[in-house]
Parts: sequence; structure tokens; C-alpha cells
Amino acid sequence: MNKQKDLEALRHSAEHVLHTAMQKLYPNLRKVMGPPIETGFYMDFDLERQSISPDDFPKIEAEMQKIIDARLPVTGKEITIKDAAELFADNQYKLNTIKEIEKAGENPEIYEIGTPKDEYYDIDLCKGPHVKNTKEIKAFKLLSVAGAYYKGDENNKMLQRIYGTAFPTSKELKEHLKNLEEAEKYNHRKLGKQLGLFAIIPEIGKGLPVWLPNGYAIRRELEDYMLKLERKHGYKHILTPHISKEILFKTSGHLDFYKDSMYAPMQIEDESYYLKPMNCPAGMMVYKLGIKSYRNLPIKMGEFGTVYRYEKSGELHGLQRVRGFTQNDAHIFCTPKQLQKELEKVIDLLHTFYKDVGFEKYKFRLSLSDPKAEKYTFCGSREGWKQAEKELESVLQKRGLEYERAVGKAVFYGPKIDVQAINVYGKEDSISTIQIDFNLPERFGIYYIDEKGNKAHPFVIHRALIGSFERFFAFLIEHYKGAFPVWLAPIQAQVIPVSDKNNEYALEIAKKLMEKDLRVEADISDNTMQAKIREAQMQKIPYMLIVGDKEEKNQSVSVRLRSGENKGSLPIKEFTDIIIQKYLTKDLQLW
Amino acid sequence: MNKQKDLEALRHSAEHVLHTAMQKLYPNLRKVMGPPIETGFYMDFDLERQSISPDDFPKIEAEMQKIIDARLPVTGKEITIKDAAELFADNQYKLNTIKEIEKAGENPEIYEIGTPKDEYYDIDLCKGPHVKNTKEIKAFKLLSVAGAYYKGDENNKMLQRIYGTAFPTSKELKEHLKNLEEAEKYNHRKLGKQLGLFAIIPEIGKGLPVWLPNGYAIRRELEDYMLKLERKHGYKHILTPHISKEILFKTSGHLDFYKDSMYAPMQIEDESYYLKPMNCPAGMMVYKLGIKSYRNLPIKMGEFGTVYRYEKSGELHGLQRVRGFTQNDAHIFCTPKQLQKELEKVIDLLHTFYKDVGFEKYKFRLSLSDPKAEKYTFCGSREGWKQAEKELESVLQKRGLEYERAVGKAVFYGPKIDVQAINVYGKEDSISTIQIDFNLPERFGIYYIDEKGNKAHPFVIHRALIGSFERFFAFLIEHYKGAFPVWLAPIQAQVIPVSDKNNEYALEIAKKLMEKDLRVEADISDNTMQAKIREAQMQKIPYMLIVGDKEEKNQSVSVRLRSGENKGSLPIKEFTDIIIQKYLTKDLQLW
Repeated sequence: MNKQKDLEALRHSAEHVLHTAMQKLYPNLRKVMGPPIETGFYMDFDLERQSISPDDFPKIEAEMQKIIDARLPVTGKEITIKDAAELFADNQYKLNTIKEIEKAGENPEIYEIGTPKDEYYDIDLCKGPHVKNTKEIKAFKLLSVAGAYYKGDENNKMLQRIYGTAFPTSKELKEHLKNLEEAEKYNHRKLGKQLGLFAIIPEIGKGLPVWLPNGYAIRRELEDYMLKLERKHGYKHILTPHISKEILFKTSGHLDFYKDSMYAPMQIEDESYYLKPMNCPAGMMVYKLGIKSYRNLPIKMGEFGTVYRYEKSGELHGLQRVRGFTQNDAHIFCTPKQLQKELEKVIDLLHTFYKDVGFEKYKFRLSLSDPKAEKYTFCGSREGWKQAEKELESVLQKRGLEYERAVGKAVFYGPKIDVQAINVYGKEDSISTIQIDFNLPERFGIYYIDEKGNKAHPFVIHRALIGSFERFFAFLIEHYKGAFPVWLAPIQAQVIPVSDKNNEYALEIAKKLMEKDLRVEADISDNTMQAKIREAQMQKIPYMLIVGDKEEKNQSVSVRLRSGENKGSLPIKEFTDIIIQKYLTKDLQLW
Repeated sequence: MNKQKDLEALRHSAEHVLHTAMQKLYPNLRKVMGPPIETGFYMDFDLERQSISPDDFPKIEAEMQKIIDARLPVTGKEITIKDAAELFADNQYKLNTIKEIEKAGENPEIYEIGTPKDEYYDIDLCKGPHVKNTKEIKAFKLLSVAGAYYKGDENNKMLQRIYGTAFPTSKELKEHLKNLEEAEKYNHRKLGKQLGLFAIIPEIGKGLPVWLPNGYAIRRELEDYMLKLERKHGYKHILTPHISKEILFKTSGHLDFYKDSMYAPMQIEDESYYLKPMNCPAGMMVYKLGIKSYRNLPIKMGEFGTVYRYEKSGELHGLQRVRGFTQNDAHIFCTPKQLQKELEKVIDLLHTFYKDVGFEKYKFRLSLSDPKAEKYTFCGSREGWKQAEKELESVLQKRGLEYERAVGKAVFYGPKIDVQAINVYGKEDSISTIQIDFNLPERFGIYYIDEKGNKAHPFVIHRALIGSFERFFAFLIEHYKGAFPVWLAPIQAQVIPVSDKNNEYALEIAKKLMEKDLRVEADISDNTMQAKIREAQMQKIPYMLIVGDKEEKNQSVSVRLRSGENKGSLPIKEFTDIIIQKYLTKDLQLW
């Protein structure tokens, strides 16, 4: 087993220890479930009207520690449906699960902590894996408590959920807790407000973020970057309306399969129009505007397309979970022969992009069809799916990339690669997706004329390197703790006069730099120089250019970095060359 | 009277001559109205079930010529309501108008052509002015016939409308007709299709244009240009969602006064959301995010905001009249003292913009309040309106601009300046608007803390230099007949190999230029060189770079302009410098 699997087993066992402790402290408790998750574990339970609060954590943690100190064995085995039903006769949730196991034609498995004669003894329906002994849980902590609907369905009963985490060493736990604290300090909602990046305004609507000047400067920089990069890779860009007629989404199938995520239609002169939840249908229509031959392929059609999708208000979260967002979207239409090369190019583009925004850690997940389920009978052909899956995997291998292989996790319309970035706190987020779409080309009757003069469906690679500018921005803000590199910084340099005698010179310097399309401001407010420096530092502006009489005389600027470091006096020309160089090369370092 | 007024009188008289002729040919005809318009005149009439077609024009024109040749006097006079009612007793439309005149407490005026003893005699309810004699109409032509609802209301009867034009000389008429023909040849819908600029796709919806790759390249270039230009002028940009909660449009008053132009609301979790018809309300909310002091002003907040407004499907027209469009919008919040300077800056920005896109002819119209109507009682203060009107006018005068003074044409929320550009065919279109808004600051409770520590409403200049990217683009396409200058051309240069031996070199040249963020393609299709040149010329690509063995050997390109002119062989470095220079300086000339 690899390290990640070991960690999962450790955390899963910590969760069982939590259950054992809770059962002792609250005999009425009915456990529902409790899996390990990316950063720890959680446990859902039903305690009727009694509710747990973080104040109870010390008591629970002390109980857990006793179980760990008791060095109890953790053992698993398979049992019969009948035995399981008897064992968990007083827990309706477990009985439901047992019924599901029976329906799937499988046998229940259980895990025990300790033995019936120990002071602490617990038995739970569980597939494991676990550690062999509770003593292996060297470091753990309970973190928070929340409500959670049974099976995530708001029509079901509201349960309680305790989150916790566990590590093989207390050093690692300590580091993790420090990261959490930092993450909270630098969370994107807090920084978004502090730095004037975005706002959620109640009168406009929940989940409908407004990009404020500093945020929009970054968004625009990213769009321009992507546009230029994609152009060099042969992409052309379109822009399609935010509303479209019903027939478009009937054809695409969204009204059959995706209606719950779409907003209600608007009537315009007896026709129904919908806000678009995806850019694909309009993209297909643009492809269809003329007859295409194999000579015209590949066609790479990009769009910075804003889509609107319904999310429950309770699930909205800053920029991470919103109701309207913009995708850096593209559809690549190609022949079977071109598929491999085009996938390689997408992966190369992705690497360039991740490098330029400074993401070092990211991982790939390849979602393939379930050979038993024969998903490709829904759309596409067996050969099409086989080729697509083979080539998606082969491009990952060819590029020497580690990836998780998720068999049976393909979506109904095709296999895909998802890319998750991992930020400095270990927090992960889905950033990019590369999918093969077998559905839309068939539904829209998309074809090209092949070498033999026959009509053929092209392969359609649907890729979004920035799946959502909003979500990506949330990640980016936290990744940089708001201290963006020069090329992304909303204000790249702030000119600060030593006294108001130097105001004119400060304005002149700012103007010179602005002429070069740099984002520069001069602070000629009434504040003191010290206050201006503090403010610029708070705003995490990369360079402060302090200008006094000496600088004015020498046509120079005194450079101070946002870290507080002084770089001394530089001729204005020299500083201009440095900042432009940093900007153009997307240098992540300020000096 | 100035030249334009003379032309209007001439055309208005030509319309009366048309009526006289029609009355003779179709005794059942009931004229409704017939004004001069920008490019000629039209006449609305009711002929019951008989319909006029262009086939009837020669006959009507011959009759009109007879009236002109008869050199009949045209005379006007005031009469009483009673006399007028008797004169037009058999024409219900005229009787309606007479009632309106009576209601307004005015006297009707009539104009006569000839006298009752002439072969041709006509009397019409009309305020004039007219020419003195029909002989002054030296050149005229009927152009088209269309349907038109009485008073423009679709619940009223459908009338017929004949369009025509008239000029003081046949040379001018000939030129105008040639212009019309050219305009038809180069109309933006035709060129939009031919050059792959935009498309209206029925499945997406009427009035909802899709920007195709070549059109989007221009749109993006314009956006970037505006963003950078506005930044240099101190603007900062935001981006607000396309849907917003009902409360926003209740506060702004749009739901009271603008509802007919808005789409039906969507329900989201028991709240109503509307597609935004204007960007202003969200802009006001952004201003309100923090307390502002006079020290923070002026605040210039720009947005490339896409709005959706209802237009009847019958009134939709290419990119000119659409249901969804993007504005280059901005709100300038300033103190009374700053107003004049900010208005000057807006005018200067506008001049830079018009120069850079190559518009030479444009005119200003200043819409002021009606001193009798006291519009400012609706919102704003008397002093506010006075200052705003005085300063709007003074900035036009200061800059030495000719302008039309439209007293009583201010909108309810404030006075404004509209700018119309005139294209090569004399066709005019509203491009820009600069308005003072007294309404929204009050409705949203927008204020700043003034020097004395009191709350005060700022002046809000609402300006859109590109009132609609869509409409502007329609104008731009026709202005350039699709042959855009280098900085706007979707493809700036096409590399064309002499034979397929030179394909590699062609690709290498294209790549080199693309590295500089130029929009360049290499045509390595199977077509002949001649066919490729023809195609590039059809696409109006500024430069064709022909590359054969000689060019490959010398690392050069042979430059051909889209006019067909050959500029000979140039080292690639030298051509690169030229095209970049043309691009950056927005040179309208190719060589």
C-alpha cells in the first residue's frame, strides 16, 4: 500500500475510535457512516434531540486517547446478511445499508475494535482497510461539527457530523493545524474583501459575485494570457449569447438530463429562452455553419463563456461555489488520426499554463468506462470509446505523468481526464478537465467529409483549462495569500512621494510607467509617507517606488519590495526594464 | 436657413408632390403623414385593400415630374380649427391630428401646391417649411415601399409607406443612389457572412448574434484598446452578473419605468431574478461598498457589460438592432467642482477613440431640459440641472465643436450629449452617449463626505463611448467595407507558399510573426497559389506574404497588399518591424 492509502487507513481507524468513544459517552447514538476524506475523516450520527458542540470535544478526545492507549486490535471479517441484520437490529441506518449490500449480491463486512471482554469494544459495518492496532494512531484532533442530511438529500432527516483528522506523527498534525489556521487567515473571502478583489452583494444576489477593479485586473490578465496562448496553439475564439431558445437545449439533451441545474425559462414572443448552463450547444451550432472537410480539421474553437447553473443557496461559498461563472472553454473537432496529437497538445498547453501561474503540485485522474456497464452503448461506438480511452491513457504515460485510474467513473458521454491542483495548505481543487464527448456530435449531427468522401462524426475534445474563472481565482488568491506575482498583481507598483513637494515627480513616474501599459498608481493623498508604505504593503503591491528630492534630481526611484526589503535607488529606465522583463516573462520572483 | 434645413424643405416638398401625384392616380387614397428624414422622405397612406409595389413607381414618378414641370407655387397659411375640420372631413387621420392641435391650444397650418384652378392642386395639413415652387425640385426618386402601423403601434391599422429622396441637383442624386447601391453591396449582414464575422443562428435566437472567430478578434482588439486607453485616463473596471435580484431594479426604478424592455423574471428559491437591461444599478451598488470622501473622487468605473433588452422580432436587424449587446460603459462619480474637467476628459477620450478607429465625420447633439416643463422637479435639483447643462454646453464650446441644441429633449434623469458618426455613404448611427444622471444617485442613496464633513450626492456622468459593441461593429464593417486597418484586421497577414516545397518555410514565417502576438496564418492547403491569393483578397487580409525558393534562400517575404499591389521582396525582419509599427500606431494605411 502506498503512503496515501496508509494515511486513509489511519484516519478511517481514528474515525472508528471516535465512534467507540462516542458510543460510550452517548449510549443513544446511532452511527450512520464515517469515511476518511482528503484531509481527515468525518462521522455522521443520529443523537435525536441531543446536540454536540465543540465544547464537548475535549471530553470526547480524552475518551479516544484512552482507547488508543489501550492498544486494542482492529480486525475485520466477512459475515452473512442474516448475522449482520441481527447485529445491527437497533440501527435502521445500518439495516438500510445491509439491504443495499444484499441487493448488490455481496456479503457484509465488519470491523471490530478490541474484543467483547475489553472495556472498550466496538463493532461496525465496514469494508476497511484499517490499521492493525489502535496504538498506531499517534496524533489526532477533532475539528468541527456540522449538520448533514442523511444521504445528502434535504428531504431526509438532518444528522450531526463531526470532522476530525489524524496523522502518523504529532509533528505532521501540528503542521496541518498550522496550515489550517493560515488557510483561514488567508482564505479567499477574507482576502477578497481586504484587497478589493470581489464582492457578493445581497441586492444583486447570492452566488453571483461582482468582480471589483483589483479582481477584474487579474481576471482580464488571465483571459488575455489564455487568448494569446491558445491562439499560438491554433485556437480561434467565439462568443455566444447567455440566453438561447429551448430547441437548442432540447437538441443537446440538457433539458432531459440537466434541467435541475438550469433556471426557469423566459417567454419571448411565445418562445421559451433559457440561460445557458454550458457553452457546448452553441459551439456545436457554430461548427455546423459550413460543411467541413477532413482538410479543415482540427478546428479548435475557444470561448470565454459565462454560464449559469442552479446551486442551492446553502451550498454557495465565496467564489468556490457560485451560480454564474465563466469558463475558459474550448472544443477541438478532429479526425481519429489526429486525436492523439491533439490530446498531447492539450496536455502541453496545460503544463505551460500551470507553470506560468506558478502551480507546482497537481494530479491527474483518468475516468474510464466500466467494461461491465458498456456505457458506450448510450452514445458513441465501441471502437470510438476504446480509441479515446487508449489515447487518453497513452498521452498521460507518454508524458510520464502519474495518474489515478478511475474505472467506471467515465461520464455517460465519454471518458475524461480531470486535473486537481494542490495549494500550499494541501487543499485541492478541480481546475481543469479534458473530456471526449460522444454525445453532442451525434445529437447535433456534427460531421465532416472524410478522405473517401463519406460523412463521419469528428472526435470532439471538450476541454476547459480554467473550468471556472471564479473557482480558479479563489484557488489563486489562497495559493498566493493575495501576494500575486508581477504579471498578475492588480497594481504592479505604487509610487510614494517622500513629501508633497515630490507629488509632481511621483505623478510623472506613474504616468511614464502607465504609458507602457503597466498598472501603476501614485499615492498623492494627504497621508504620511509611512502610512502610504503601510497601506501599499497591506495591499500587497509588489513594488513601492519611494521618490524624494534625491530621486527627483537623479531621475531615479528608490525601490522597496512588499516584503519590506529595500533595493536602493535605481534610474527610472533601469527599473522600467526590470518590471517589464518580470511582467513579460511571468517571473514569480520580485527580485 | 442652413444647407441641411434647405435640403429638408426640398424633400418635404417632394413628398407633397408625391401626395399630389398619388391623389390623382388613386383617388381613394387617404394620406396620414409624410415627413422629411435624414436621407430623403417618406409618406404614410391608407389605400384600403389596394397595395402599391415598386412596379408602380415609374407611373407615379412620371406624374410627379409633370407637377414639377408645371412650376406650381407652394404656399402655406394658418387656418382655424373649424375650417381645418371642414377641409379634411373625409380623412379620419387628419381629423385626429386636428383634434390634437386643438388640444394643444394651437392653430392648424396648411400648405397648398398650385391653386384650385390648376390641373394639379393639393392641400395638406402641414407646418412646413417648403420650397416656394415645385420647379426647385431638380432631382428625386422613389426608392421602396413598406408596411407601417398607424402611429407605430402594432394594435393600430397597417398602412403603406413609400420612401423616396430628393436633391438640389441630379449629380447629387446620382451620387446618393450609387452610395445606396454600394452600401447594399457592403452591408454588414452580407460582409458579416462573407468574412465570418458574426452569425444569427435560428436555434439560438433572433437578435442574439454569435461573434464568429474573425468578428471576435476585432471585438477583443477593441475591448483591449478601450481598457488600456481608459486605464490611462484613470478608469478602473468591474464586471457584474447578467442576472440580479428584483430589489435591485425596484430600487433603480427600472421595474417602474423600463419594464417593457425587460424580460420576464426567473424564480430562484422564491426570489425573482431579472436579466439586466442596464449596467448602472450594479455599478451604483459597487460605489456603495465603502464610504467615499471627496478625497476619493473622481471615481471612474468602467464595465464591458452585456445587457438584454426586449425588441420586437420585426424590428431586429443584423447587428444594428439586437436583443443582447455589450456596452463599453462607465460611470464617473465626481464633485460639482470636478464636473467640468471630467466632461472635458470624456470628450478628449472620445476624440482619441474616433481618430484611432478612423471616424472622421461625427456630430454632437446636446439635449437640454424644457425650461417650461421643469423636468428637474422629477429628480436632481434646479442648481444641479443648471450646472450640468451649462457645463455640458461649455465643454462643447471650449473644444470648438459644432452641435445641435435640442431644447426639451433631455431625458427625465438628466441632460446629455449624443454623438452620431456618419459613414462613407452618409449613413448615420448613434455611437456614443454622455449623460448626467440625477436619478440613480438619489434612488440608491449614493453620497460622499464633502470638505465640510457633510453628505452630498456626487454628480454621476454616465458615458458609453461604444454604446453597443454590436451596433458599433455594424457601423465599422460598413465604414471599412470589411477591409479593416491592420490593428483591427482579424487576420493581419496570410503567408502563401509558391509551391508545397515552401510549406515548411511558410509555417516558420507564420510562427515567427505569431510569436509577436500578430494574427497571422499560413495557407498550406492543396489549392494553387493563385487560388490562395484570390481567397486572401476575398477575405480582405491586409498583407499576403508570398514565399518561394528565392524568399526561402534570402529569409525574406514578397509582400502583396489586398489591393493587389506588389511591394516586392523584404527581409522578414524588416516586414515584421513594419507590421508591428502599423499595429501599434493604429495606422489606417497599409503602406
